[in-house]
Amino acid sequence: MSSIKKVVLAYSGGLDTSAIVPWLKENYHCEVIAFVADVGQGAEELEGVEAKAIASGASECYIVDLKEEMVAEYIYPTLKTGAIYEGTYLLGTSMARPIIAKAQVEIARKVGADALAHGCTGKGNDQVRFEGCFAALAPDLKVIAPWREWDLTSRESLLDYLAERNIPCAASATKIYSRDANAWHISHEGGELENPWNQPSEQVWMWTNSPEQAPNEAQYVTLSVEKGQVVAVNGESLSPYQCVVKLNEIASVHGVGRVDIVENRLVGMKSRGCYETPGGTVIMAALQAIDELVLDKASRKWKATLGGEFSHLVYDGRWFTPLKDSVLAGAEALAQCATGEVVLKLYKGQVTAVQKQSPNSLYSEAFATFGADDVYDQSHAEGFIRLYSLASRISALNKSTK
Amino acid sequence: MSSIKKVVLAYSGGLDTSAIVPWLKENYHCEVIAFVADVGQGAEELEGVEAKAIASGASECYIVDLKEEMVAEYIYPTLKTGAIYEGTYLLGTSMARPIIAKAQVEIARKVGADALAHGCTGKGNDQVRFEGCFAALAPDLKVIAPWREWDLTSRESLLDYLAERNIPCAASATKIYSRDANAWHISHEGGELENPWNQPSEQVWMWTNSPEQAPNEAQYVTLSVEKGQVVAVNGESLSPYQCVVKLNEIASVHGVGRVDIVENRLVGMKSRGCYETPGGTVIMAALQAIDELVLDKASRKWKATLGGEFSHLVYDGRWFTPLKDSVLAGAEALAQCATGEVVLKLYKGQVTAVQKQSPNSLYSEAFATFGADDVYDQSHAEGFIRLYSLASRISALNKSTK
Amino acid sequence: MSSIKKVVLAYSGGLDTSAIVPWLKENYHCEVIAFVADVGQGAEELEGVEAKAIASGASECYIVDLKEEMVAEYIYPTLKTGAIYEGTYLLGTSMARPIIAKAQVEIARKVGADALAHGCTGKGNDQVRFEGCFAALAPDLKVIAPWREWDLTSRESLLDYLAERNIPCAASATKIYSRDANAWHISHEGGELENPWNQPSEQVWMWTNSPEQAPNEAQYVTLSVEKGQVVAVNGESLSPYQCVVKLNEIASVHGVGRVDIVENRLVGMKSRGCYETPGGTVIMAALQAIDELVLDKASRKWKATLGGEFSHLVYDGRWFTPLKDSVLAGAEALAQCATGEVVLKLYKGQVTAVQKQSPNSLYSEAFATFGADDVYDQSHAEGFIRLYSLASRISALNKSTK
Amino acid sequence: MSSIKKVVLAYSGGLDTSAIVPWLKENYHCEVIAFVADVGQGAEELEGVEAKAIASGASECYIVDLKEEMVAEYIYPTLKTGAIYEGTYLLGTSMARPIIAKAQVEIARKVGADALAHGCTGKGNDQVRFEGCFAALAPDLKVIAPWREWDLTSRESLLDYLAERNIPCAASATKIYSRDANAWHISHEGGELENPWNQPSEQVWMWTNSPEQAPNEAQYVTLSVEKGQVVAVNGESLSPYQCVVKLNEIASVHGVGRVDIVENRLVGMKSRGCYETPGGTVIMAALQAIDELVLDKASRKWKATLGGEFSHLVYDGRWFTPLKDSVLAGAEALAQCATGEVVLKLYKGQVTAVQKQSPNSLYSEAFATFGADDVYDQSHAEGFIRLYSLASRISALNKSTK
Repeated sequence: MSSIKKVVLAYSGGLDTSAIVPWLKENYHCEVIAFVADVGQGAEELEGVEAKAIASGASECYIVDLKEEMVAEYIYPTLKTGAIYEGTYLLGTSMARPIIAKAQVEIARKVGADALAHGCTGKGNDQVRFEGCFAALAPDLKVIAPWREWDLTSRESLLDYLAERNIPCAASATKIYSRDANAWHISHEGGELENPWNQPSEQVWMWTNSPEQAPNEAQYVTLSVEKGQVVAVNGESLSPYQCVVKLNEIASVHGVGRVDIVENRLVGMKSRGCYETPGGTVIMAALQAIDELVLDKASRKWKATLGGEFSHLVYDGRWFTPLKDSVLAGAEALAQCATGEVVLKLYKGQVTAVQKQSPNSLYSEAFATFGADDVYDQSHAEGFIRLYSLASRISALNKSTK
Repeated sequence: MSSIKKVVLAYSGGLDTSAIVPWLKENYHCEVIAFVADVGQGAEELEGVEAKAIASGASECYIVDLKEEMVAEYIYPTLKTGAIYEGTYLLGTSMARPIIAKAQVEIARKVGADALAHGCTGKGNDQVRFEGCFAALAPDLKVIAPWREWDLTSRESLLDYLAERNIPCAASATKIYSRDANAWHISHEGGELENPWNQPSEQVWMWTNSPEQAPNEAQYVTLSVEKGQVVAVNGESLSPYQCVVKLNEIASVHGVGRVDIVENRLVGMKSRGCYETPGGTVIMAALQAIDELVLDKASRKWKATLGGEFSHLVYDGRWFTPLKDSVLAGAEALAQCATGEVVLKLYKGQVTAVQKQSPNSLYSEAFATFGADDVYDQSHAEGFIRLYSLASRISALNKSTK
Repeated sequence: MSSIKKVVLAYSGGLDTSAIVPWLKENYHCEVIAFVADVGQGAEELEGVEAKAIASGASECYIVDLKEEMVAEYIYPTLKTGAIYEGTYLLGTSMARPIIAKAQVEIARKVGADALAHGCTGKGNDQVRFEGCFAALAPDLKVIAPWREWDLTSRESLLDYLAERNIPCAASATKIYSRDANAWHISHEGGELENPWNQPSEQVWMWTNSPEQAPNEAQYVTLSVEKGQVVAVNGESLSPYQCVVKLNEIASVHGVGRVDIVENRLVGMKSRGCYETPGGTVIMAALQAIDELVLDKASRKWKATLGGEFSHLVYDGRWFTPLKDSVLAGAEALAQCATGEVVLKLYKGQVTAVQKQSPNSLYSEAFATFGADDVYDQSHAEGFIRLYSLASRISALNKSTK
Repeated sequence: MSSIKKVVLAYSGGLDTSAIVPWLKENYHCEVIAFVADVGQGAEELEGVEAKAIASGASECYIVDLKEEMVAEYIYPTLKTGAIYEGTYLLGTSMARPIIAKAQVEIARKVGADALAHGCTGKGNDQVRFEGCFAALAPDLKVIAPWREWDLTSRESLLDYLAERNIPCAASATKIYSRDANAWHISHEGGELENPWNQPSEQVWMWTNSPEQAPNEAQYVTLSVEKGQVVAVNGESLSPYQCVVKLNEIASVHGVGRVDIVENRLVGMKSRGCYETPGGTVIMAALQAIDELVLDKASRKWKATLGGEFSHLVYDGRWFTPLKDSVLAGAEALAQCATGEVVLKLYKGQVTAVQKQSPNSLYSEAFATFGADDVYDQSHAEGFIRLYSLASRISALNKSTK
């Protein structure tokens, strides 16, 4: 193993990273700095995390609040592209990884570390996302991925490893689901979900009511959108992060935002995941409603291309690349007109945009309904159709004269 | 006006086409043959339609049952591409137009007509779809679009026109909504929908219960899929059309399949439409669930491109074109592996695929969960990541050495 | 005909627009302002043009020099996207139309005109481009397209029309080819070109030597590129327009830049056109050479999508649209790294980039050739391949176990 | 090292694979079967290859003639998509790999081998292509890639290795360029090409005259195309492979088909390659000429998407995947109308299609030139333009009324 003096570890306080701290020290003979990203995973996960890190053997622990920056600089740009991975997944984990990696690199620079470590397994996407960002931001730093090196492959062996070193850990020997949470979503894998023929049991879901448990009365919420960003909820101006928090509160009650899919991982296999993105689902519905009003046909078709491309590049961990800059610049241009108000109905697991308006709306009652106006003359349609179908006509005439 | 002897009119029995029959005879001095396409719009619409046509002055009336052919040859091919127009619209009207136009041309050939007529307005998509298909199938036949020619621009003037000619018509002077129905869906425009800030009133919807009125208990339905087509519902083998009918019955009770959008028409303006596609929404959810299991990452991304392209070409009336043949051929190739079973939950307006399996599934519990197997060695991930992020690394090294 | 007081005509001094001036006055009883866009079509075309306009009956004639702006603001943005229409056409006419339309609208505003007129025929693309730009920039102004209105459908009838009014015109009664020139290119249509089975005769070509007549010795030219723009030729800093002029001089001698194609017009028919774009062809080759060095695989693939989209939108006259803003923004982002030097060889009709370098080059001799380095370890390849082909492997294993 | 009994090696008779035979036997203690694919690399490369293989220690040597199958089943399908990698590379090496891999697997099945081996280096694309195909066709067979395992990293060490074992080898200790040839092309890497600032010296090129050495008189060749395949050259019917051979003979004299590029390898780095594809360049030009005549605007735009996608998937070794089947099916559909004749001019390094005709041509002199006909009425253009630009107009009116 190569010589490393100081490593910054993306530390969560969970079982895995608790064991990684001593493992790094023993195997790399290096100082370990714990880095905790606060991306809105919740107060309970952060509570006492610094003490835990020190108890595990870290020489320092940095907790960095990334919540507002994550929503403003990573989530909203993604939303502006309309990216939804494989038609369904709102990219909650994917969008958080680059900001965590970037902040981790910043800590590494600050403390003069020569390596970075993470607790991602060797079968998942996150290792690629972290290390892809590290390659772009700090190609000179070594990367250590203990899960690809060590032989501690069960929770029990990890607990034993900690016990042998007298490192306290509250983790239990069994854990059904693997979860990941941030301000935007919580994901669930494992347990009965491993078989796609199993319906998720109610204990899978952590944030949202089931549609059955949701109130019998619908709730309406009004979102104000400016250039592709939600700026107010029910008339109250809120920061990007606060918006998400507020909408999570509202939408989770109504069971909105549950998704249960089998997805293609970047590393070539499929996995089954359940996601809860209550506020995000409402925001996405509002942004699509504005797009309906303000984007012309060619622009909406093009935006679908942008969104498809972006969904893959975010999922695949290509945040710090020219490709991302390019696709995003295209989406930002279209978002300039994405301003307006949307009223959404939340009911029993569903969100529906029921009222929409925009100062940039291309919809006009006058154009769409009756005929005699300066803008649209029905007789124009004949000429349009003749030229629009001219190639078909020529081709058909060709065939008929053969 | 050019000399026309016999015209085949796409006749519905409604107010517009009832007036078009005498109008054609008077203005073109030609024989009018009524052609009625049975695309599943419902028995009440077809009842007595032949008598009505004759009473209006048509010399003959042909009613052609297109229901099975429409679902098998127009709807399923579209579904195989995954086409959803502008992310939401299941293309119910768009898919019906080409088969109607084709059958109309066949009648015209049979009766030796020299012209075709339709009752579409000059502001809509359907005129382009009909005439685009006519151009491809019968470029030698004249096309008459009375709505672009006459000055009968209100329901009242049409009723007067019929009354003056003693042609009986049950139509009322006022009609709030403009609707179009076939086996797949029913669409609604007009009335309060003209303003996107108005929520649709309950009287808009014709087929489905509101989510609020839907049963308080979920219903589960099992769909069997073979090569991209639903072949059985709850174990009962059904023809393509029967499947749709069966699923319409089931899903409409649960309020599934309502959509309320502002869409871009082909003719350059936006319109607001509400659609009910209960069975179709369930079918689409099942097909997507199978795709989750059987399509690899690159194939799913590509299929999204196919679906996007197809959604526009169907909406735009380009059915009988080489472009359609090409995109469809691409989708048919991917559909070869789209076989399996899906259990869907219907509840309060929502359909969710809760169980899915396929003999061609690329999901494997073994691969996704634990490590030591022949197929996936976690240590491979390091090599993958290094090469996957190599361009980023080189670029970053470039910058750091400047 | 609607009431019009003052019209600004895009005037060239040729036969058509010479006749349009009196025709507009006689048929619309309005004042006619001639507007001449200097887009580099050549001094001989501009000489005496104002006097001609006045002699035809125009009350004023504005000549506006658009050469630098056209190259800087319309051509270079297009080049940054890599747009080549249908794989071959460098969009010379298409890129000029929006700037001419914009300048024409500015003159109309300045003189308080209420209408715009152009001399484009009713079968071509240019009418759509002009009027599409007018719709975007001046939807309130009327548009007059005499070619779609009058019955002067031959050169002879136009000459007669002018003679009857004693308007002098040097045009001859016969003209084989229809040509359009600006700084970027000259196009040729008509004559024997109407049959794609006819090889273009040498008299078609105006700017370039034939490859046979070109020098027997190659010439080398060095282009310096900064962020996607050529800034110097053989070390001499030049403005965007001067670059094009300089490279036209050099490349035309060597017969570079001839293209002979059948293309799809926007209006549904095909046309056969020959184009000479000597300098542009050299510039495009240089920019592609830089891209080879600086764009990673995913970015180049994406840029091809941008270029394809842009080629159609420019050809189709959609310059002043959100779609253009979006695609261009995406291309501008990628162009940030497109800096470097390229040496090109010009010989007998061909241009070849023979030397290329860039400070942002991702090519590294060290990485590409031998193995033992920090950046690339050959053993990584195995892991890459295993994950890269994992879906294929799973699929194949599936099949073999059935 | 895992237990292997019999391995089939893709054997060329060159230095690398000559050393791999004994290396496999010594390191894997297995029987080695040599497999030589005749893909048109030339008689001199095949001469005595069996004897060489046996002398190296192979127990058997299979030489399989794949020439016709390669052109018919791998090259023409690719050509039908229009695939050109990164705008320039005609994919000569990429297209050959899957057929070689497939034939190698067939030999392995025939002889009951349990492993496959190849001589590709660990930095290139070919290892991924071979092993990707192996994964799809024979996931049960082990794969051995000696270049990623051994420490014989120079020609000298390989020669020493052979000399120590008394295995005769005619290879010289120095070799400037690395080349790969088949019926379609020959590629060149290494030597001075390692620096993109170096112009390739004349000794790089093997098949083609330099443009300077090419005849001073142009040669014309006529290609007959049927459904996207060249079926005759100058009126002489030829098999797919014979066509390529014939056109290689003709075009190489005129210096046609040289390409010099820096390309993105699949494994994340760039490489500089020179390619000679004389006949292929002529064929591609002919197919594009036919496309100009027979594909409408939307179909050509779509075909560019197909070609872009296919170019990457072939380059990336994804031949035996559903993605390939899908994209190819789309291209085959478009190729149904790609029939006609093209005359091409070959002169001093350039090929130009100078005459083209097709029974399916959508070009019509009558439509393109004068106006009064049934198919195109110039007055239709106004209607077309009004609707085509309607969204721009509405948007502009919106802004002007604010």
